[in-house]
Amino acid sequence: MELLYQKTALVSQKELQKTAVKLVPYIQKLRRVLKEDKYTVPESSINLPSDKKQLREVLEMKKKMVSRKLKYIIVIGIGGSNLGTKAVYDAMYSYSDVLAPRRFPKMFFADTTDPEFLQALCRFIELEIKHPEEVMMNIVTKSGTTIETVTNLEIILVAFRKKIKEIEKRIVVTTDRGSKLWKAAAGKKIKLLAVQPVVGGRYSIFSSVGLFPLAACGFNVSEFCAGAVKMGGKCLNSQPLKNPAAVSASLLFLNLKNCKVINDNFLFSPELESAGKWYRQLMGESMGKEKDLDGKTVHAGITPTVSIGSTDLHSVGQLYLGGPADKFTSFIYSSKISSKIKLPEKFFFPGLVNELKGKTAGEIMDAILRGVKIAYSNKKLPYMEIVLDGISLHSLGEWFQYKMLEIMYLGMLMNVNPFDQPNVEAYKKETRRILLSR
Amino acid sequence: MELLYQKTALVSQKELQKTAVKLVPYIQKLRRVLKEDKYTVPESSINLPSDKKQLREVLEMKKKMVSRKLKYIIVIGIGGSNLGTKAVYDAMYSYSDVLAPRRFPKMFFADTTDPEFLQALCRFIELEIKHPEEVMMNIVTKSGTTIETVTNLEIILVAFRKKIKEIEKRIVVTTDRGSKLWKAAAGKKIKLLAVQPVVGGRYSIFSSVGLFPLAACGFNVSEFCAGAVKMGGKCLNSQPLKNPAAVSASLLFLNLKNCKVINDNFLFSPELESAGKWYRQLMGESMGKEKDLDGKTVHAGITPTVSIGSTDLHSVGQLYLGGPADKFTSFIYSSKISSKIKLPEKFFFPGLVNELKGKTAGEIMDAILRGVKIAYSNKKLPYMEIVLDGISLHSLGEWFQYKMLEIMYLGMLMNVNPFDQPNVEAYKKETRRILLSR
Repeated sequence: MELLYQKTALVSQKELQKTAVKLVPYIQKLRRVLKEDKYTVPESSINLPSDKKQLREVLEMKKKMVSRKLKYIIVIGIGGSNLGTKAVYDAMYSYSDVLAPRRFPKMFFADTTDPEFLQALCRFIELEIKHPEEVMMNIVTKSGTTIETVTNLEIILVAFRKKIKEIEKRIVVTTDRGSKLWKAAAGKKIKLLAVQPVVGGRYSIFSSVGLFPLAACGFNVSEFCAGAVKMGGKCLNSQPLKNPAAVSASLLFLNLKNCKVINDNFLFSPELESAGKWYRQLMGESMGKEKDLDGKTVHAGITPTVSIGSTDLHSVGQLYLGGPADKFTSFIYSSKISSKIKLPEKFFFPGLVNELKGKTAGEIMDAILRGVKIAYSNKKLPYMEIVLDGISLHSLGEWFQYKMLEIMYLGMLMNVNPFDQPNVEAYKKETRRILLSR
Repeated sequence: MELLYQKTALVSQKELQKTAVKLVPYIQKLRRVLKEDKYTVPESSINLPSDKKQLREVLEMKKKMVSRKLKYIIVIGIGGSNLGTKAVYDAMYSYSDVLAPRRFPKMFFADTTDPEFLQALCRFIELEIKHPEEVMMNIVTKSGTTIETVTNLEIILVAFRKKIKEIEKRIVVTTDRGSKLWKAAAGKKIKLLAVQPVVGGRYSIFSSVGLFPLAACGFNVSEFCAGAVKMGGKCLNSQPLKNPAAVSASLLFLNLKNCKVINDNFLFSPELESAGKWYRQLMGESMGKEKDLDGKTVHAGITPTVSIGSTDLHSVGQLYLGGPADKFTSFIYSSKISSKIKLPEKFFFPGLVNELKGKTAGEIMDAILRGVKIAYSNKKLPYMEIVLDGISLHSLGEWFQYKMLEIMYLGMLMNVNPFDQPNVEAYKKETRRILLSR
């Protein structure tokens, strides 16, 4: 992965230096957290990718649960419990759920309690499952009491039971050790995976939360973790200008000071939309804070948005180029395209766009992106570029770890706690009251 | 459809009245456009849903192209050429492309030139198509020279040719009468549908652009148009406070004046995500303007975002409740849930969340939404509610027509042209230059 920003981020080297250097003590702290290799502080999530014991547990669980018969993995979880898993699954298999109907296992995600989806999923289970080993359910909730997750699992288990006698054998529960759900599942001899209590949901992709369903689906999670370990090293460099996470945190911070209240993540690869949505949670929930670390009311935050190239150039491109200059853009793309699919030499409809002859689809996408970057520069719209080394488990591992460290650094610069989410209690409390009063 | 906003939009009745009344002359103009029933001005798109001749042409084309064998419709188009169609398809069939593998026809959308997707789609065609009548391609591009659309069609046609002898018979081209593509297709005796030249892409859902692929897919497009006609009447009411489009345009405008630079469309139904993205284009491209109608540089615009309830409460909920107060929210949901799927009386894991017992999934979702609305009100975060009368072709027809009229009104209030997109030329020009220089 490479971070490009010189001249385009519209931040002077001096300003950048002055800001990034403030991160040095925190970088030192994180280096100590890494060296200790324990789970004692929220930042300890940086130790997950190199946790061999955890990886062994995940792979052993896979061995127990996955046979060649496995066709469907149903992940029941919401927010931090499924966004990372879905990001990797979509990046790697993207459209092939429909376009490769015979590729298995497929993964389904039950997050919100959408009645139509639940009905369709239950019907699917009743119609399609012929053998218990064809399906596995992974219930993921740290607290064990997430309303949506409990609703989904209880409804889906009704459909399960009609098809499978010993459903207990086809469930894996991922939760905090000792949660109510942990105890209930243990009582039924259901297989359990623990999450480290200090690791928050949005920092949990390299814990059993993400690694188990991905391993079960056949992804090489060692490669995924190796990418994260490599990038973790770079992003703990105590020379902050050589540290990509420290640099991009500083660029986001300085651009916010310059009234760029939106960070648009413009991903030039539709497969990466869910990866963008994972980051949207990470930034939104970590930076969006009513109070700062001193208890002062600040209403801090940057609003993250996700755009897809080239599709959204035909949607919000006009707004971005002509509208309010309130955005700092991150262009995210891969430097390597594996497919060489190309336009034929002889066109079926000749004479429409002559420039396209003989080009690969990848070259067309690249030319569009280059055109956009020139247009942004001409309009003095600030941006950075995050160039992935292909779309692979290794490069995705790099991306996740880089972004989690960037957000920790940004929390430090903005003087907010990037690990809590105190305001969501406001609606949850009301929801519970409404449910009880019915 | 119902619009609710009293007390929650944080706009006084006096301010609202004062703003909405400014729209009266424009409403009068639109009423004349409707009465004339011609295609003379960009606003003429409001006449599309009642255009019987167009509907007849679309249904005749369907008769020619669709047999019971039809399994796959490939829509090749980007931006205004596919966002509306995709919005309806996803709202109605949502998850069932994977969860109902034997439901046909299925629709695929080729918009950007993603190499991996194109490769997967070509392989799919080669593997799955057994008979010409199983597949149909609808090429949609007003200009006929959209880079992505030309790239996609030329690449996909190569795969088509390997399977089907007379591919000309399985293509319908939707384009401006007389475009280069029109002529090229006519020369090959390919079936053609014309678009009214004055109707812009983002206002074209009720033209052959949207109606033909939807009709071919088996949707009752008469119902869809009937919803639009009904809502068109309400949204041309010259008493502006009785006109939902005039009211919500005024609320968006007044909230923008009050520094709400983002309009979050919070859809409490995952099936409506693509409908949200359709509106994102409509608002983004129509309002995001460098210059106003007097030629003054203004960088106008509201940034539209799309959030999904309850999923995104676990993602950006903390940001929305605790972060910067820079958003005006539109909660969009259905008052009728057809599925009554519910939680069992006896839980598999008893004691996790007791409040849920005996509730339907729809009631849970409703309680979450109500909890969120109370939390927004307590935090003085302004919002309006758009309540759909179920998710049906009729209610979707209402929604599209309501939103297109709202945006025309908002353009009038903001003194910008809601029908052009001059700034996108900036990157297109550069892209063409890059492609030619290679």
